[in-house]
Amino acid sequence: MTQFPSELLGGYRSFMAGRYTDERDRYRKLAESGQKPKTMVVACCDSRAAPETIFDMGPGELFVVRNVANLVPPYTPDGEHHGTSAALEFAVQALKIREILVLGHGRCGGIQAALNPESEPLSPGDFIGSWMGMLKPVADAMLSYTTMTAGERQTALERVSIRNSINNLRTFPCVKILEDQGRLKLHGAWFDISTGELWVMDPQTGDFHRPDL
Amino acid sequence: MTQFPSELLGGYRSFMAGRYTDERDRYRKLAESGQKPKTMVVACCDSRAAPETIFDMGPGELFVVRNVANLVPPYTPDGEHHGTSAALEFAVQALKIREILVLGHGRCGGIQAALNPESEPLSPGDFIGSWMGMLKPVADAMLSYTTMTAGERQTALERVSIRNSINNLRTFPCVKILEDQGRLKLHGAWFDISTGELWVMDPQTGDFHRPDL
Amino acid sequence: MTQFPSELLGGYRSFMAGRYTDERDRYRKLAESGQKPKTMVVACCDSRAAPETIFDMGPGELFVVRNVANLVPPYTPDGEHHGTSAALEFAVQALKIREILVLGHGRCGGIQAALNPESEPLSPGDFIGSWMGMLKPVADAMLSYTTMTAGERQTALERVSIRNSINNLRTFPCVKILEDQGRLKLHGAWFDISTGELWVMDPQTGDFHRPDL
Amino acid sequence: MTQFPSELLGGYRSFMAGRYTDERDRYRKLAESGQKPKTMVVACCDSRAAPETIFDMGPGELFVVRNVANLVPPYTPDGEHHGTSAALEFAVQALKIREILVLGHGRCGGIQAALNPESEPLSPGDFIGSWMGMLKPVADAMLSYTTMTAGERQTALERVSIRNSINNLRTFPCVKILEDQGRLKLHGAWFDISTGELWVMDPQTGDFHRPDL
Repeated sequence: MTQFPSELLGGYRSFMAGRYTDERDRYRKLAESGQKPKTMVVACCDSRAAPETIFDMGPGELFVVRNVANLVPPYTPDGEHHGTSAALEFAVQALKIREILVLGHGRCGGIQAALNPESEPLSPGDFIGSWMGMLKPVADAMLSYTTMTAGERQTALERVSIRNSINNLRTFPCVKILEDQGRLKLHGAWFDISTGELWVMDPQTGDFHRPDL
Repeated sequence: MTQFPSELLGGYRSFMAGRYTDERDRYRKLAESGQKPKTMVVACCDSRAAPETIFDMGPGELFVVRNVANLVPPYTPDGEHHGTSAALEFAVQALKIREILVLGHGRCGGIQAALNPESEPLSPGDFIGSWMGMLKPVADAMLSYTTMTAGERQTALERVSIRNSINNLRTFPCVKILEDQGRLKLHGAWFDISTGELWVMDPQTGDFHRPDL
Repeated sequence: MTQFPSELLGGYRSFMAGRYTDERDRYRKLAESGQKPKTMVVACCDSRAAPETIFDMGPGELFVVRNVANLVPPYTPDGEHHGTSAALEFAVQALKIREILVLGHGRCGGIQAALNPESEPLSPGDFIGSWMGMLKPVADAMLSYTTMTAGERQTALERVSIRNSINNLRTFPCVKILEDQGRLKLHGAWFDISTGELWVMDPQTGDFHRPDL
Repeated sequence: MTQFPSELLGGYRSFMAGRYTDERDRYRKLAESGQKPKTMVVACCDSRAAPETIFDMGPGELFVVRNVANLVPPYTPDGEHHGTSAALEFAVQALKIREILVLGHGRCGGIQAALNPESEPLSPGDFIGSWMGMLKPVADAMLSYTTMTAGERQTALERVSIRNSINNLRTFPCVKILEDQGRLKLHGAWFDISTGELWVMDPQTGDFHRPDL
């Protein structure tokens, strides 16, 4: 018999009895005609920040990349295995996505790691260290902001990093061109896990504020 | 005023009125005590295959990496930005995850790309080509299985790729050690978008079958 | 006849007809026995941030100093006219205040001036420049935090300044002694004029967070 | 957890449930467009004499300086930290205030201190002594008016001090010029804490009388 986790099987059972039953036709259509999501979300792996949950979205609605700290690397066409860049290329070129949202969140473990460069690597490979190294310039700057508390620096870097990823998105020629033509929009948002507050980025100033709901 | 997509704001409103209201205390606790998920899922970016939806999971339950075609690369400690490896390291070493599930699905666009190596790159960078290149050996073998239909080869590679990723997981020393000690379990599953069927991998044989529900 | 502003006379009429009538005895007692407020508030002159309004407080409850940007200068016993220090001395020594709150707020014009040191003085006397000069060290540091937006620097300095004033409070021997004896407590809070949110300072970390209400 | 005073949190709760709810739009507008008060009030820190209460004024209506005994020092452009002068400059030059009211009140502790120069300083710094020293000339004169009772001298000095502060206001070039042009008006008023009576100053004679309501 299978060792497949019983919580997952139990959850799958309630999915089948609930949402799937309600949306059987939708799933069938989505299978036949293929996915046509309008929106791509770059989110964090964090178990508390699933975009489908926060935005109450159903099947077919969000094309989602999730990596540690929701980072977008700059355009680097070197033939290496760039997972996030591959997803971006697929979303923009194949799926003709119209909106890209970089979704950050509070108490992000990856951002915390970036603000503690001296801490022991988690493994000899130090993959987190290398991954968060993408933020090193802004993280180092943030570490020098000594009038702010550690908590304030963490929240600030979570938001700086979102702007940083949005700037990196613009280094991809396809993104730049489509945005300039008004056919693609880039957005930033930050989710407060504790209070459930969503803060959205003002595209002009880069400031985050609570939207009118 | 912000151009933030109205569908997302609308979805957030119903999240706040619904799930968040029901689970306010849980969110607060998750914020204060930090996330402690038992399970990590490597899933695809596909908008039809969100693990939180398929397994009806709530906040704090699943640590989720999503990349194109739910691939796990082999252990490569070269200091490059390996997003999936960083997430794996964080999940296993920092979060002490107990189960890792590689979740594939039908009609996967990434797998389809791997089976059409001659097709035009989506962009000069050809990030999808490079990313799916990870599967080249098995994809090339699959292309030689000429007695199978294109559809059969697609489904077959979707499952071969899951076994391939699970093998790559074992190239990470921390995964290998913990699995040998019985403190970490690796699982595979495949979701049929059209029928909603979940097929789980037999850890001994590698075969996929419908679980008893 | 008097040129006394009619809005003020009108407001006074409704005070007499309303609150005063309800609290006539309280006013009489407060006159006879003298004021015995438990709490002193250092607030800003800003017309949108009156502490009696934000905390819905009545006559006799709050001893209130209001100056531009709710600043407390450090202890400087030089015989000059130090209005805020005089109020502090009176509150602590004569009124035996038990709690002191430094109340800041968003979009503070004084803080904005501190972050724009190059801007033209408002008058030859440049009193605002001299007054906000008290914050020069932290304001200069903040101006170097270039990864943050102007809006983020403003909010950050509004909060840094509150911590700075609380530290300055502790330079007054009477405050230091009574706080060490647990007979006087110092608090910080920040009011968001736009959303009405109150953020209170954690006395340990200095971070500002939303209180449970 | 925070030690923030529960009375203040309770008061904030009723503010949010009451006034803020009623005036949410007004607060939002005041945040976006900035404050535009027509009137500045120089009032005392006394907990029984909050101008927003006495004049029943809402958010955005009064720009308020509060110091001990509602004093305005004379124009002294020496680069020192003059809190009241800074507030005055900001109100007149930046906010283009049209009316300035110096609001005194009965049983003022600061005035009482000025009439008891022999009394023990409250602290080695003697900040109250130095602050009220501004009134020394008029206070000394008052002390020689031996046919008046102590109570009469107190009330008399409370009113003399208001006229004195209004004269000091006129030593500020910007105030003098705007008043001469009829673009700024200066007012005096005195509030009787015990009876709730408001007495306003006749701008010609300097006498205080009850206004017609």
